[in-house]
Amino acid sequence: MSLVSLGSDNHSGIHPALLDAMVAVNQGFAASYEQDPWSQELKQKILSEFDAVDSALVFNGTAANVLCTQLALQSYEALLCSDASHLAVDECGAPEKIAGVKLVSLPTDNGKIRIPSIEQHITRRGDQHCSQVKMLSITQPTEYGTLYSLEEIAQIAEICKSNDLYLHMDGARLGNAAAALQCNFKTLVKHCDLVSFGGAKNGSMLGEFVIVRNPDLKKGLKFFRKQSLQLPAKTRFLSAPMIRYLQDDLWLEIAQHENEMAQLLRQGLEKIGTVTFTRPTQANSVFCILPRPIIKELRKSFFFYVWDEQTFEVRLMTGFSVTPQHINDFVTLVQSIHTERTTP
Amino acid sequence: MSLVSLGSDNHSGIHPALLDAMVAVNQGFAASYEQDPWSQELKQKILSEFDAVDSALVFNGTAANVLCTQLALQSYEALLCSDASHLAVDECGAPEKIAGVKLVSLPTDNGKIRIPSIEQHITRRGDQHCSQVKMLSITQPTEYGTLYSLEEIAQIAEICKSNDLYLHMDGARLGNAAAALQCNFKTLVKHCDLVSFGGAKNGSMLGEFVIVRNPDLKKGLKFFRKQSLQLPAKTRFLSAPMIRYLQDDLWLEIAQHENEMAQLLRQGLEKIGTVTFTRPTQANSVFCILPRPIIKELRKSFFFYVWDEQTFEVRLMTGFSVTPQHINDFVTLVQSIHTERTTP
Amino acid sequence: MSLVSLGSDNHSGIHPALLDAMVAVNQGFAASYEQDPWSQELKQKILSEFDAVDSALVFNGTAANVLCTQLALQSYEALLCSDASHLAVDECGAPEKIAGVKLVSLPTDNGKIRIPSIEQHITRRGDQHCSQVKMLSITQPTEYGTLYSLEEIAQIAEICKSNDLYLHMDGARLGNAAAALQCNFKTLVKHCDLVSFGGAKNGSMLGEFVIVRNPDLKKGLKFFRKQSLQLPAKTRFLSAPMIRYLQDDLWLEIAQHENEMAQLLRQGLEKIGTVTFTRPTQANSVFCILPRPIIKELRKSFFFYVWDEQTFEVRLMTGFSVTPQHINDFVTLVQSIHTERTTP
Amino acid sequence: MSLVSLGSDNHSGIHPALLDAMVAVNQGFAASYEQDPWSQELKQKILSEFDAVDSALVFNGTAANVLCTQLALQSYEALLCSDASHLAVDECGAPEKIAGVKLVSLPTDNGKIRIPSIEQHITRRGDQHCSQVKMLSITQPTEYGTLYSLEEIAQIAEICKSNDLYLHMDGARLGNAAAALQCNFKTLVKHCDLVSFGGAKNGSMLGEFVIVRNPDLKKGLKFFRKQSLQLPAKTRFLSAPMIRYLQDDLWLEIAQHENEMAQLLRQGLEKIGTVTFTRPTQANSVFCILPRPIIKELRKSFFFYVWDEQTFEVRLMTGFSVTPQHINDFVTLVQSIHTERTTP
Repeated sequence: MSLVSLGSDNHSGIHPALLDAMVAVNQGFAASYEQDPWSQELKQKILSEFDAVDSALVFNGTAANVLCTQLALQSYEALLCSDASHLAVDECGAPEKIAGVKLVSLPTDNGKIRIPSIEQHITRRGDQHCSQVKMLSITQPTEYGTLYSLEEIAQIAEICKSNDLYLHMDGARLGNAAAALQCNFKTLVKHCDLVSFGGAKNGSMLGEFVIVRNPDLKKGLKFFRKQSLQLPAKTRFLSAPMIRYLQDDLWLEIAQHENEMAQLLRQGLEKIGTVTFTRPTQANSVFCILPRPIIKELRKSFFFYVWDEQTFEVRLMTGFSVTPQHINDFVTLVQSIHTERTTP
Repeated sequence: MSLVSLGSDNHSGIHPALLDAMVAVNQGFAASYEQDPWSQELKQKILSEFDAVDSALVFNGTAANVLCTQLALQSYEALLCSDASHLAVDECGAPEKIAGVKLVSLPTDNGKIRIPSIEQHITRRGDQHCSQVKMLSITQPTEYGTLYSLEEIAQIAEICKSNDLYLHMDGARLGNAAAALQCNFKTLVKHCDLVSFGGAKNGSMLGEFVIVRNPDLKKGLKFFRKQSLQLPAKTRFLSAPMIRYLQDDLWLEIAQHENEMAQLLRQGLEKIGTVTFTRPTQANSVFCILPRPIIKELRKSFFFYVWDEQTFEVRLMTGFSVTPQHINDFVTLVQSIHTERTTP
Repeated sequence: MSLVSLGSDNHSGIHPALLDAMVAVNQGFAASYEQDPWSQELKQKILSEFDAVDSALVFNGTAANVLCTQLALQSYEALLCSDASHLAVDECGAPEKIAGVKLVSLPTDNGKIRIPSIEQHITRRGDQHCSQVKMLSITQPTEYGTLYSLEEIAQIAEICKSNDLYLHMDGARLGNAAAALQCNFKTLVKHCDLVSFGGAKNGSMLGEFVIVRNPDLKKGLKFFRKQSLQLPAKTRFLSAPMIRYLQDDLWLEIAQHENEMAQLLRQGLEKIGTVTFTRPTQANSVFCILPRPIIKELRKSFFFYVWDEQTFEVRLMTGFSVTPQHINDFVTLVQSIHTERTTP
Repeated sequence: MSLVSLGSDNHSGIHPALLDAMVAVNQGFAASYEQDPWSQELKQKILSEFDAVDSALVFNGTAANVLCTQLALQSYEALLCSDASHLAVDECGAPEKIAGVKLVSLPTDNGKIRIPSIEQHITRRGDQHCSQVKMLSITQPTEYGTLYSLEEIAQIAEICKSNDLYLHMDGARLGNAAAALQCNFKTLVKHCDLVSFGGAKNGSMLGEFVIVRNPDLKKGLKFFRKQSLQLPAKTRFLSAPMIRYLQDDLWLEIAQHENEMAQLLRQGLEKIGTVTFTRPTQANSVFCILPRPIIKELRKSFFFYVWDEQTFEVRLMTGFSVTPQHINDFVTLVQSIHTERTTP
């Protein structure tokens, strides 16, 4: 793809500072399986930044979500999640297959679970014929680039607590959420039992983290990881860049840039006056409706996904390598195609 | 670890040429999930080099083995493998958990299945009370660094064919086998239905391949991969170095070097005259018995594993970054400790 | 429970004729695991009555449904079913755990899937991130005692065919459906690839059947059964009563009686004039709303379930041993409590 | 089969007293799913007789074993069992598929695990690459009709305790063991955490029990049962006969009879002088070698299995309905065929 991509934040490559960190550790021999010094340093850093009791490096976000599920749930239990969540719609049934659990999809507004509706889904307690709801997962930011406020998370946590549910946060883009909410990770996850934390949408090559905050849920983590095909060998190359990511607020710098590019894009498109926005822009994506012919034309220069084939809602995501110039070019192009098409 | 490691060939880092290839593709945007041009080029290369019908990049060797099992077996079927195989003893029950199958461990000589004994384990055909044997897996080179000759593989394949079994080759170090047997990959795997092919023991950072040679077994590969938590996003960084690995016989150069270092090590230790060798040295490892106090002393300068705590059999593996100088230092040290200890 | 039960058709015992058949075969020795002559006779009968290619006796309806799923689907595939279906809400996640698949619940009217909405749920074909819809399951009669007409089944089958889906019929009460629709089993299931067929709601002690009509789906049936913990040993006692059930239209006699008792009950309650009916009565159940105090009072003499704790919708089911006298007593009691409560 | 069967103790039908108990409860309505009074009475009786904390009725022995495994083990853990055990060789991989665990088969003498060898198989504690041994299962009596003495069980329990393993007893024929060892159930299982207890080999129609003695292992029992397809509906017919079985020492009477028939058979065959016995006869089976032509001839009048096709070892099992006359006829027939064949 020689095109500029607004298709996904994983279409950007490796952030230069993170690549430098990878190159820097390619010297001499190192223990594998998180026994190298970088992995050990990173683990301490993560435990501290997330006020956590254990963590494990895994290969991708699906794996982090599934491992969290395995840690928290018996196979006869169920997981509440949003009907737009990666867990529900983008993991090809991995939670069901690997953890054996039932997923219960909750209706959402712009990817956010409707808080007052949660308790309707916690039913048939103790009825052996029915999977028992035991965890709620929220995505932060959501798959539609929206955010739960800290107050909303607290409210959700309260509901979980009073209904004996664990709270999981899918944080594949947690940096973007923390940047947008102007808080640190510790504050963001303080009500969560388990967190999936990823860096790939913020410029790391790969590697996500299962973060365990509830000490009751750490049993067997390393064994579940291995059995779930998630034990990396040469961990220094995954850990060293994440140390760098967490250092000197690099994560914040990257996430802020991505979020700002999304705002810039939204503002640019808003000025055109005829683009319909379908979701609030709170993190690093813009969802809007573009007429089909415009989409076709735009795709000659930019890559992006049509999110809803019925409505022509498109998703525009801003990875770390998207620049103001890219945004400007995109907006200008939308405008020019538009003008062309509406001028007699 | 500042020590030189003979502990594992994954204690060496990333081969410089492969790292260069990774760095070189860190420009601009690229599609993810094997849709980038490098992944597509690599796929064609693999299909051609292995005379295969499909392939999929996964994260590690355990995953490649488990995916091959999922492709070939129903959950009520069984897999024959060596009692020393990675599948049987180093995957924390992943084949059972993920593919649902039974593993039947066959006794071995130096990691090699005893060919005449195979058919004894193919029993109770059609008996519903019993898992039905449907695949045989051989590791090449074995976990003890030994090799099946091309003739032996042909013999095994004949047994599989006449008993309606698929043949799988676990080739986490396939390059070392091909180098030692002086053949190309196509020849090495020509009797196999499925191959797990890895580069991490030859200097890649991570990434293994499920290679499907039998067209009956390719159904659902991409879905099994995703559901088994094995779909990488930024695939350009995994594919580009593997293109380089397969180019200009770099794989051969690396594997030959590793194999030669093992021969050098063996010859050096043989000259000492008092080291007992427990296995033939045919690929990139030396297994021998060292007295406990020598082990303790050696470990101050070199990292390696005691493979059998009862007998003090140690495994010495030579990764790509092990040099003749390292070998020489190690042998000299063994000799000097030995001399010291036996001199009154 | 000394009470008369309208709680479930499995609160009735064993139909006398079926018990006689069980007692009659308790002589001498017999092979187990369906190798006895009765099981072999029954199998032939079932293959013939359902125009099927294979069948297997299992222990209960959940098992029959899960085995059908295992036969038809890979773990990365998905099953469409009604949001009221036993599969979705009364199997404690067994389909997900044992078959590894995703269930997609479709909204329903009185337990019936809305036919025009089916195709909306067949999405993302070929997209590796998403479980691939491959089977549709309908319950006949539904969990709300309603029926798909033969025309509706044909329509559904057409949709399945044109979308490459298998069609499964959950027939835990198939006799009641056939009796109500005045057709035989062959006609009722003629569009189905797989059928779960049960007799326990019609007076058998236990035992359901996985019936395979599509020859592509019979592979591995006996092994899946054993591995899914469903192989009965003393099968003569399960088969002999089912031979009797299918003989001389005994099934029809029983099912008609159950259906008639439900009609009698509905008519009786309708006459009272103040009972609200929530579902059509087409098989052997009546769903209606009863005021809470009436429920409490009624329960002193009759057992039944409140189906919806919010609305006080109750389910009244008529098993084979429910008599016109029981119905009359129940209706009279409802009326008398009602009169008492509304008389000043 | 009109032949007398020494093939299996499940070739005998339902014991008349147990059938009477089934017939007796076929009156009126009863709650299902173990909520009927008989199931509740039975549960209390079992808890008391086995000094247990919970129990659950399931359909067969495979299910009882698999449920015990689910209760005790995480999927990354392993189960030690004999290489002749039902768990290892007669459950079509159900423990692996359903519980996800690894089975480690231990070599045996006449079906009994060699006690001094147990600890050799408890290795690699804490090593994430390897399934962690967490339970030992013994079969009592074994699949070869031999018995662990109470002292041996105590020894095994001691090893389990000091190695942090749970102890499971597969008691598909527990009555026969208790009868032979002249002890009650409580004494027999007093060192066990979990017991699979079956009546079908002693004349019940079907139904086995998961018995939980260790209070740490009872969590989720009813949900695991339902999800594992093991929840029976009309439980009165399974519970009432088991109440009878446990009443007035009927179990003991039946088991003693079966054991005595085996002794009678052994003594009869011993007198012939030329039959080779391959296993001690301690419960209700005789294993011996019969020449192939004799087997063929005998099978015209008696059904039995050749256990080992290589050696012509046959298994002769005595179910409750085997009489002294049957035994006498069999022995006489063996003798007469033998005489005929050896007389010139």
